[in-house]
Amino acid sequence: MNKKIKNIGLFTSGGDSPGMNAALYGIAKVAEINGIKITGILKGYEGMINGDFSPLKSSDLKKMVHRGGTLLKTARSKRFLTIEGRKLALKHLQENNIDALIAIGGDGTFKGLLTFSEICDIPFIGIPGTIDNDISGTDYTLGFDSAVNTAIENIDKIKDTAESHNRVFIVEVMGRDSGYIAIHSGLTTGADAILIPESGKDFIYLLDKVKNYDSEDAFLVVVSEGDEIGAELVSSKIKEVNPNVDLRITKLGHVQRGGNPSALDRMLGIRLGVEAVKSLLQSKKNVMVGILNNQLHLTPFNEMVKQHQVNKELHELLELFGK
Amino acid sequence: MNKKIKNIGLFTSGGDSPGMNAALYGIAKVAEINGIKITGILKGYEGMINGDFSPLKSSDLKKMVHRGGTLLKTARSKRFLTIEGRKLALKHLQENNIDALIAIGGDGTFKGLLTFSEICDIPFIGIPGTIDNDISGTDYTLGFDSAVNTAIENIDKIKDTAESHNRVFIVEVMGRDSGYIAIHSGLTTGADAILIPESGKDFIYLLDKVKNYDSEDAFLVVVSEGDEIGAELVSSKIKEVNPNVDLRITKLGHVQRGGNPSALDRMLGIRLGVEAVKSLLQSKKNVMVGILNNQLHLTPFNEMVKQHQVNKELHELLELFGK
Amino acid sequence: MNKKIKNIGLFTSGGDSPGMNAALYGIAKVAEINGIKITGILKGYEGMINGDFSPLKSSDLKKMVHRGGTLLKTARSKRFLTIEGRKLALKHLQENNIDALIAIGGDGTFKGLLTFSEICDIPFIGIPGTIDNDISGTDYTLGFDSAVNTAIENIDKIKDTAESHNRVFIVEVMGRDSGYIAIHSGLTTGADAILIPESGKDFIYLLDKVKNYDSEDAFLVVVSEGDEIGAELVSSKIKEVNPNVDLRITKLGHVQRGGNPSALDRMLGIRLGVEAVKSLLQSKKNVMVGILNNQLHLTPFNEMVKQHQVNKELHELLELFGK
Amino acid sequence: MNKKIKNIGLFTSGGDSPGMNAALYGIAKVAEINGIKITGILKGYEGMINGDFSPLKSSDLKKMVHRGGTLLKTARSKRFLTIEGRKLALKHLQENNIDALIAIGGDGTFKGLLTFSEICDIPFIGIPGTIDNDISGTDYTLGFDSAVNTAIENIDKIKDTAESHNRVFIVEVMGRDSGYIAIHSGLTTGADAILIPESGKDFIYLLDKVKNYDSEDAFLVVVSEGDEIGAELVSSKIKEVNPNVDLRITKLGHVQRGGNPSALDRMLGIRLGVEAVKSLLQSKKNVMVGILNNQLHLTPFNEMVKQHQVNKELHELLELFGK
Repeated sequence: MNKKIKNIGLFTSGGDSPGMNAALYGIAKVAEINGIKITGILKGYEGMINGDFSPLKSSDLKKMVHRGGTLLKTARSKRFLTIEGRKLALKHLQENNIDALIAIGGDGTFKGLLTFSEICDIPFIGIPGTIDNDISGTDYTLGFDSAVNTAIENIDKIKDTAESHNRVFIVEVMGRDSGYIAIHSGLTTGADAILIPESGKDFIYLLDKVKNYDSEDAFLVVVSEGDEIGAELVSSKIKEVNPNVDLRITKLGHVQRGGNPSALDRMLGIRLGVEAVKSLLQSKKNVMVGILNNQLHLTPFNEMVKQHQVNKELHELLELFGK
Repeated sequence: MNKKIKNIGLFTSGGDSPGMNAALYGIAKVAEINGIKITGILKGYEGMINGDFSPLKSSDLKKMVHRGGTLLKTARSKRFLTIEGRKLALKHLQENNIDALIAIGGDGTFKGLLTFSEICDIPFIGIPGTIDNDISGTDYTLGFDSAVNTAIENIDKIKDTAESHNRVFIVEVMGRDSGYIAIHSGLTTGADAILIPESGKDFIYLLDKVKNYDSEDAFLVVVSEGDEIGAELVSSKIKEVNPNVDLRITKLGHVQRGGNPSALDRMLGIRLGVEAVKSLLQSKKNVMVGILNNQLHLTPFNEMVKQHQVNKELHELLELFGK
Repeated sequence: MNKKIKNIGLFTSGGDSPGMNAALYGIAKVAEINGIKITGILKGYEGMINGDFSPLKSSDLKKMVHRGGTLLKTARSKRFLTIEGRKLALKHLQENNIDALIAIGGDGTFKGLLTFSEICDIPFIGIPGTIDNDISGTDYTLGFDSAVNTAIENIDKIKDTAESHNRVFIVEVMGRDSGYIAIHSGLTTGADAILIPESGKDFIYLLDKVKNYDSEDAFLVVVSEGDEIGAELVSSKIKEVNPNVDLRITKLGHVQRGGNPSALDRMLGIRLGVEAVKSLLQSKKNVMVGILNNQLHLTPFNEMVKQHQVNKELHELLELFGK
Repeated sequence: MNKKIKNIGLFTSGGDSPGMNAALYGIAKVAEINGIKITGILKGYEGMINGDFSPLKSSDLKKMVHRGGTLLKTARSKRFLTIEGRKLALKHLQENNIDALIAIGGDGTFKGLLTFSEICDIPFIGIPGTIDNDISGTDYTLGFDSAVNTAIENIDKIKDTAESHNRVFIVEVMGRDSGYIAIHSGLTTGADAILIPESGKDFIYLLDKVKNYDSEDAFLVVVSEGDEIGAELVSSKIKEVNPNVDLRITKLGHVQRGGNPSALDRMLGIRLGVEAVKSLLQSKKNVMVGILNNQLHLTPFNEMVKQHQVNKELHELLELFGK
């Protein structure tokens, strides 16, 4: 059963995030010490289906530990949703003598692995990589801390011009359905209001504040992307209650996905990468490695619930500072 | 005629830009050495009309040399467009014993001074401060180099994610009617196409390129803001010729206006600030100090043509790299 | 006993660290909501002895949340070590109607409070602020994450030149007796060797590696400051075993203490600041607020052991990557 | 005589500097458009002697335009100083059908080319690359602006901690025999004193200032490296006149050589790279391309004087601000 692993296949899938290369470095180093080969698969499941495999060396990855993006590239694969696609992927794994797989990606990536496990019995380990921090089973996903740092460095710049003009600024940050980036970047830049998807479209309190805004200072609103609270919607509501307000919008966009990873994300990548290989050596399979309360933690793919809830302490801070 | 100047009034006007505080520091230091007081006027012409004056010290400004924004705040003033407004401004200048004025701002600021000179005979000196680099009489305006550096740092991040996904990215930068920021930030990030207002809405060559784009690499377009070439327009045109392209838009927005100034902008601020005071001491008036071919240069307000034309060398580079 | 707190005195003491201003902001905001005044004491215990007190406003602190250093300034106080000094400090606290104190600082700061508590019965709360991460009772001290981020951004730069020349580089980082900064910055930059004080002067393994170093790549050593492992000592030992090696030293020094705080440090500052006030409202006294396993945690001053030990997981990573 | 160039050899030599990769990109793009192949030579003259040649593609270089260091690596070559070494280099150039050479480097690199021209008649073009800005014939060398920006970002951080403690800080920057980096980084960070090699060991004025320094504020000294004014020497002199001063030293070191190039250096690299190829197409040889007063300018190698003198305006600024 516990046959020796000789060749681990690695791929990144879904949206890229800073720290993915650090995780690859962590994996490579421990694999090397344990005499295990590692093989990179390009563009996620697409490369698996296309047979796009090539060997990776720890010494090459060492030079990429500080780079954003993913050197293995990433993609979404429609073909992998079909049984034909998955069979082809399996064939290429077998032809390349891959006897374990480590995937760095999000929710969708792990669901893909779960489906794949129906026809493929090599062990899978997942590493949570997404800037949205919306995966249960880990306090931090790879890339979240970097995205927040990128967001706040840009919001700091916006504060310079906002304060020079005493303007209202609405800054839209990423996060899909999760308010994590907005809460963290809003609190840490001294935002006057923070709107997150979890709180829905209720921002009457903000309108109350703005109604009496006297332009004697800057006024900063940080909002998550999302249908009910996006920057444009909030802007139009503000203008309804205070038509004369001098207001500007900036949507930070994809800059939040790139850039050299922060120290925390590099460490997290290394820690999770190391643990992923160790888990394989301990015959673990079909689990995601994460960090809960600063301890390494394994969550079976089939127990994963998507949403990582904004916790009580954060909600209280949001009430205190963002309202 | 050449009576000794005892108290220089300083203000910033129009859009803020990184380096304005460095210019104030430059002014303050030389003024101090020459035994001249300096007085800050808050919020540009608005503060002049409101009588919002306060003394400035070189030692305080030294601590602000590296900060973005303008500590004197800035605003656009409708009241200054009226003769009543200007008379009130004059009254407050006289009451505060201001016997010279240095203004940091753009085209509109200097036009304001020119009009003001009809009723006010104290000497005015202008310092060009705008990220758009669109003022004639100087090769660089204060804030341009910082804005370009901010733009390219963010575009570098976008390249990480663009290359991880092999995506088309359209990044919109500022510049109003001027393509300077777009040319500089596009060339220096290896953009595959660069669109500037000066070239109008002609981007057939871009569409030709994209028509055959095979998604085997990232494809980066840097466009100026503007009605005829904004990111959305370019995006819709691209989708017409290649509907399947995986495309994202990021509009960098006001982050380009803030942040600590670059080394060049700080030096430029100090150089122009020093020259502004020296010019006053040499009985110059109603001129803008600028840098032409790396030499300090004075341009009378009434000879200023707005547009700083994109020069021949830049146009050739644009042809070579952006097409 | 549980009399209502009306005026909290705040001060920073010992070495400054990024995030101190964010903690002040966190304190100020919660205090304001609870109708409590806050009073800043300049330069730590020195200001207490000198009577250097002034009121602070949450709206002013909001503008400082992203700034490095401490707006309250900091100092070491010899006079506070004397009973006369402490009596004078107490007198000024009483004159200023301070009925609670929150101190941000390190080990020595809290020891000072413990001694002070012998004559002063107003409640004290401590917030751990030091880049060294060497305080027990918290997983992170304020400033540590920022210091590591500053270190790795600079080491990334050094890697550019090291790889261009295939040179050996020894980079010395801070940390006093603690290897935390060295481990984190070494692992996350792909260092070939990491030397920390906890491991003492044993670096034979490094010399073995360097003995056979063939100059076909860069070789990066990250060392902590310290008598037994400082950069110069390591350099001379390396030159003994491989005299021809092309070697350079960079000691990052005090840049690690400054700069805008990272997202994590700003959040940590806010979280600890909020908890400090809440603890006072719950009649806690003479405790330090910290974060253990991502949960807020109180440690009585008299139970604090100085050293925060490098944990088992980190030691294993050090073995894997740094040797 | 003016035979068509088909294959340009490229190499970087001497100390690396940010912007070298951008220059390679500029060269590659123009060469490609003109149907000229480009060949990279690794490690400068060493690679030429070793026969380390490989073709370069413009599309690969496009991805490196924003990276620090040099992808061609660099080295100093003792063998090239010998006639045997140069003959071997020539042989490899001929075997690889190199019919023109572009070198990016400093003074020593160009002297090497001049000597080489005695036995090798293929045209040489030089591009000035060094952070020291100490080459005549150009106002800016590649890497200087990036080095200054790195220096000031780090000095800004040091100011945070200096002002928190009211300390004296001596920051040593690079520049070899040239004070350019010191003047620029000192002026733009509000230094209280700036010491450069050109002014020699005369810093009595600094000692006069420090003698009466009352520790009521930070005091920042920026010094160039160099025997007569290095940080340690200045420190010991200061302590002689004011033994109680709380003083710290930071030597920024090699961080100044690395990091992503600034916007100016990337543009400069592209401009000089393009001009280098154009010069070859116009049958120019044995000249360095530079920027004088913002215009492209060619200087024959045999007319180059090493030192780029600190100009009059800078000297005046130094007098005003640094004393």
